[in-house]
Amino acid sequence: MADYQAPLRDMRFVLNEVFDAPSLWASLPKVAEHVDPETADAILEEAGKICSGVLAPLNREGDEQGSRWNDGEVTAPEGFKEAYQTIVEGGWNGLGGNPEFGGMGMPKTLVAQFEEMMQGANMAFGLAPMLTAGACLALDAHGSQELKEKYLPNMYSGVWSGAMDLTEPHAGTDLGIIRTKAEPNDDGSFSVTGTKIFITWGEHDMAENIIHLVLAKLPDAPKGPKGISLFLVPKFMVNEDGSLGERNTLSCGSIEKKMGIKASATCVMNFDGAKGWLVGEENKGLAAMFTMMNYERLGVGIQGIGAAEASLQSAREYAMERIQSRAPSGAQQPDKAADPILVHPDVRRMLLTMKGYVEGGRAFSTYVAQWLDTAKYAEDEERRKHAEGMVALLTPVAKAFLTDRGLETCIAGQQVFGGHGFIREWGQEQLVRDCRITQIYEGTNGIQALDLMGRKVVGSQGKLYELFAQDLAAFIEVNSSDETMRPFLEPLVAAFERLSDVTEFVIKQAGDNPDVVGAASVDYLDLFGLTALGYMWAKIAKAAAPKAAEDASGFYSGKVKTARFYFDRLLPKTVSLAEAIRSGSDSMMALTADEF
Amino acid sequence: MADYQAPLRDMRFVLNEVFDAPSLWASLPKVAEHVDPETADAILEEAGKICSGVLAPLNREGDEQGSRWNDGEVTAPEGFKEAYQTIVEGGWNGLGGNPEFGGMGMPKTLVAQFEEMMQGANMAFGLAPMLTAGACLALDAHGSQELKEKYLPNMYSGVWSGAMDLTEPHAGTDLGIIRTKAEPNDDGSFSVTGTKIFITWGEHDMAENIIHLVLAKLPDAPKGPKGISLFLVPKFMVNEDGSLGERNTLSCGSIEKKMGIKASATCVMNFDGAKGWLVGEENKGLAAMFTMMNYERLGVGIQGIGAAEASLQSAREYAMERIQSRAPSGAQQPDKAADPILVHPDVRRMLLTMKGYVEGGRAFSTYVAQWLDTAKYAEDEERRKHAEGMVALLTPVAKAFLTDRGLETCIAGQQVFGGHGFIREWGQEQLVRDCRITQIYEGTNGIQALDLMGRKVVGSQGKLYELFAQDLAAFIEVNSSDETMRPFLEPLVAAFERLSDVTEFVIKQAGDNPDVVGAASVDYLDLFGLTALGYMWAKIAKAAAPKAAEDASGFYSGKVKTARFYFDRLLPKTVSLAEAIRSGSDSMMALTADEF
Repeated sequence: MADYQAPLRDMRFVLNEVFDAPSLWASLPKVAEHVDPETADAILEEAGKICSGVLAPLNREGDEQGSRWNDGEVTAPEGFKEAYQTIVEGGWNGLGGNPEFGGMGMPKTLVAQFEEMMQGANMAFGLAPMLTAGACLALDAHGSQELKEKYLPNMYSGVWSGAMDLTEPHAGTDLGIIRTKAEPNDDGSFSVTGTKIFITWGEHDMAENIIHLVLAKLPDAPKGPKGISLFLVPKFMVNEDGSLGERNTLSCGSIEKKMGIKASATCVMNFDGAKGWLVGEENKGLAAMFTMMNYERLGVGIQGIGAAEASLQSAREYAMERIQSRAPSGAQQPDKAADPILVHPDVRRMLLTMKGYVEGGRAFSTYVAQWLDTAKYAEDEERRKHAEGMVALLTPVAKAFLTDRGLETCIAGQQVFGGHGFIREWGQEQLVRDCRITQIYEGTNGIQALDLMGRKVVGSQGKLYELFAQDLAAFIEVNSSDETMRPFLEPLVAAFERLSDVTEFVIKQAGDNPDVVGAASVDYLDLFGLTALGYMWAKIAKAAAPKAAEDASGFYSGKVKTARFYFDRLLPKTVSLAEAIRSGSDSMMALTADEF
Repeated sequence: MADYQAPLRDMRFVLNEVFDAPSLWASLPKVAEHVDPETADAILEEAGKICSGVLAPLNREGDEQGSRWNDGEVTAPEGFKEAYQTIVEGGWNGLGGNPEFGGMGMPKTLVAQFEEMMQGANMAFGLAPMLTAGACLALDAHGSQELKEKYLPNMYSGVWSGAMDLTEPHAGTDLGIIRTKAEPNDDGSFSVTGTKIFITWGEHDMAENIIHLVLAKLPDAPKGPKGISLFLVPKFMVNEDGSLGERNTLSCGSIEKKMGIKASATCVMNFDGAKGWLVGEENKGLAAMFTMMNYERLGVGIQGIGAAEASLQSAREYAMERIQSRAPSGAQQPDKAADPILVHPDVRRMLLTMKGYVEGGRAFSTYVAQWLDTAKYAEDEERRKHAEGMVALLTPVAKAFLTDRGLETCIAGQQVFGGHGFIREWGQEQLVRDCRITQIYEGTNGIQALDLMGRKVVGSQGKLYELFAQDLAAFIEVNSSDETMRPFLEPLVAAFERLSDVTEFVIKQAGDNPDVVGAASVDYLDLFGLTALGYMWAKIAKAAAPKAAEDASGFYSGKVKTARFYFDRLLPKTVSLAEAIRSGSDSMMALTADEF
């Protein structure tokens, strides 16, 4: 297994050449205050050192050891506590955090690159900073000034970590039916009682305190999702002076044995009248949670890209070193017993498919991050609203499409290794096992597709889709006279028309038939994602083509040729997806339960 | 996790109603001698009891324990030795074996059903009988009368197991470069020296002796694949009277830690001048091995179906029991907190996709088994040759397409479970990990695709393809006036034309460009498999439609409706595959190594 190296050159290319992020930052005063291109570059460099040098080396052994539970205490694998300390010392937990409470105020466009390398280096570890950052975000957006002052600085620093407690044994997707209760105490606090499952890093030994954000129901709360509130429940009470007080009445009942991300603890958390404080308004807990979710969901999509990049690096190296059989066109290295397997068209197909999704996916997550930055920091309200619409539309695509393609990429990387891909020491199989969870948690990919197709596209009667369509149409228009762009724009235009037609088709049908949305949703998200990545590859080609001739390293010409592959071999999948969607919902809904 | 139940009704439906296997058997005197419909049915019933009752209950714990290595000895997980004894007592190892040496002489059409249930119940265990049967096949086809008499009876009974020793650390796909040597002794035997890896059940404690079939090179053998011979190397010497003698000089150096099939031992085997005997002719070992391979490759395809069936059974049950959210069209079970997730179109989409591949795949493996039976047992030479052509063409499709769809199905089954799918105790994640190997071993699926596209289709200049095309065309012709078949035949004809066009396209291009075959191969195999399964679903619809109205159980109407789903939602993938193939090899071959 090749050692993971943070893909700094690719990240700089996307940030500076494909998107010109520095101009975006300059246009947002609150961002410009904290970051300029030099600062950003230094952050990337330093983040790369930590991810490649500290986190990646712990990844394999972390998987072998796993987190261990003993009588309510959870011990992270060897080296994790020290690595976490490195993250704390660098302030990395608070990279995108609110400077008012000790965050570094960096834009998501930059933070996304750090997230990708952290997740690519060690996903099980990366979940701890990721969930802490998510908890901070919810707290910063919805908590009282008092709560923020008390908790945020130590969470941004990472001295305390955060956890999100949503799921219960009988309530996963359907949070409306949770049973955890919160009863008001006389002092303004609440007593929280119930059992939560699947709580990532809900208990561990890496941080001094763990701050749980817990969904629970107040007495007499309305039924369903509109009766859910959000509470902050610390593992240890925090005294007025900020020091830690007594242990709160919550405990980790067990941790799960699971397929992957084994180094991370997935906890059953029991709350037994644990003391907590309301975050945001009563019965509006789901809305508060969704503030966090939009960020987290992009973060999960980025996990898919991170794992896929790690798989690609390793598979590429293996394909160049492993010799086996001869090239179809005749021996390439006649002095050796065989040629490197990179000579074989099908090995190239696998690597190029991986590159197509990883590099296109990185551009797409940066594209979405741009809209997140604009939505959060733009001073002009109209500009902010427009960006919020883009974020709402694109977030489910980023989460589901990038993780679906993430798994596909990791499986392809494993396949490049042949039999060795199945053996643990080579590392590829761990990437498959780890990456698999990204399609499931933070809302399954099926739920993302329903969110996209139902709430966003049909729910807005196409208005949100139009925002994306206008952006893409403008790009096509601007580049229509550029001859070098023609081979990319032609198939892109065709896919775009296909997507727009299907969008219109589903919106029309959905009025008469409530099952149409669910029947179309997963294929629609795929069609959307493939087209969006086509847009990204056209942007990449646009940025790389003028430099391809003069660059001896092959970096820019490789980008242009990979774009060509994407349009030739991957984008055509949109044709079949459109055809499948047009068949409607009848063939799914026709069966009785007995007929399954 | 639902307990695995051998899908006997579906197997009987495929054997008797879709294919009328009894008529095939009656037409082959050597088969008719041993089997009639009643015998076949009794065998299925008994096999079902053992697979569901003995093998399936060991599957989860076998995965947790794994096989253990200690100083050259390998201990199978608890209960495996006893289960193996049950297989020995029933003579299941020799179900399809040559009756002259103690086999039961059953046709592959029947044996394939047994294989599917054994692999579905416990794939790691099932590999032991599978490899023993494969070794018997090679020995029966190529061994001397003396070797056959000495080894086959105890291998068919299973008292001795078999192993296939091909791969070396530097030689997997490219067996031409193996280094294991065989030097002739004075007594007609050979001394075999070398290291083999990835030897499934190469060492274990379940059988009294282990018979290795080892690929090695004679002194002065020609270079490359034409200089490889096959040797029988027993773990224990066998005396003239059949009793076991001294230990041979071969040993298990270690076993691999791997992603799945953990209960099976994947051995490094060291041969240190071990005594062996030539099987077949000198330097024709690869050909001898391929006799076995055609059977094994279908067997691996069947493993994909077996795992997928297990996943389907479990996911179907979960979808009916798990309640979560409401149906899009309004509450279906208003008295409960939520509806079963089966009401959701997207959950149905996942289950129907699974059914489409599993049930269509079972029909396809039975279809290929028919040709294997005909090729082996038909008395008329022309009929035999025709069947051999079909076997040659369809074997790589069965191996690769059924395992690719097998993994896709297991991943879908895991997704139906949401977060619980990632947790080990639910069993779904094990099916994903186990099934993953089927795409890799017995020739990776990329190699299968090259075999199909290069050796079979282009290599015969389309003649082998024509055999399949004629069979499919005849089915379409016969049913063209059947009105109930129209909705199935129309899309089938379109996919068939697409496949034929692409076949012609690649054959034409391949003359000028040696990379075209490898560039097209994987997508071509997928296109072929989807079309072949379309053919199977049309056959299933044909068999089920007349009985659908009168059957209250939903069995037949469920088949017809699932066929409808297959044609609406899965077969359309052929459109995109054809388009991708037509882009040729340029976008793959254009990159230099630096550009990757």
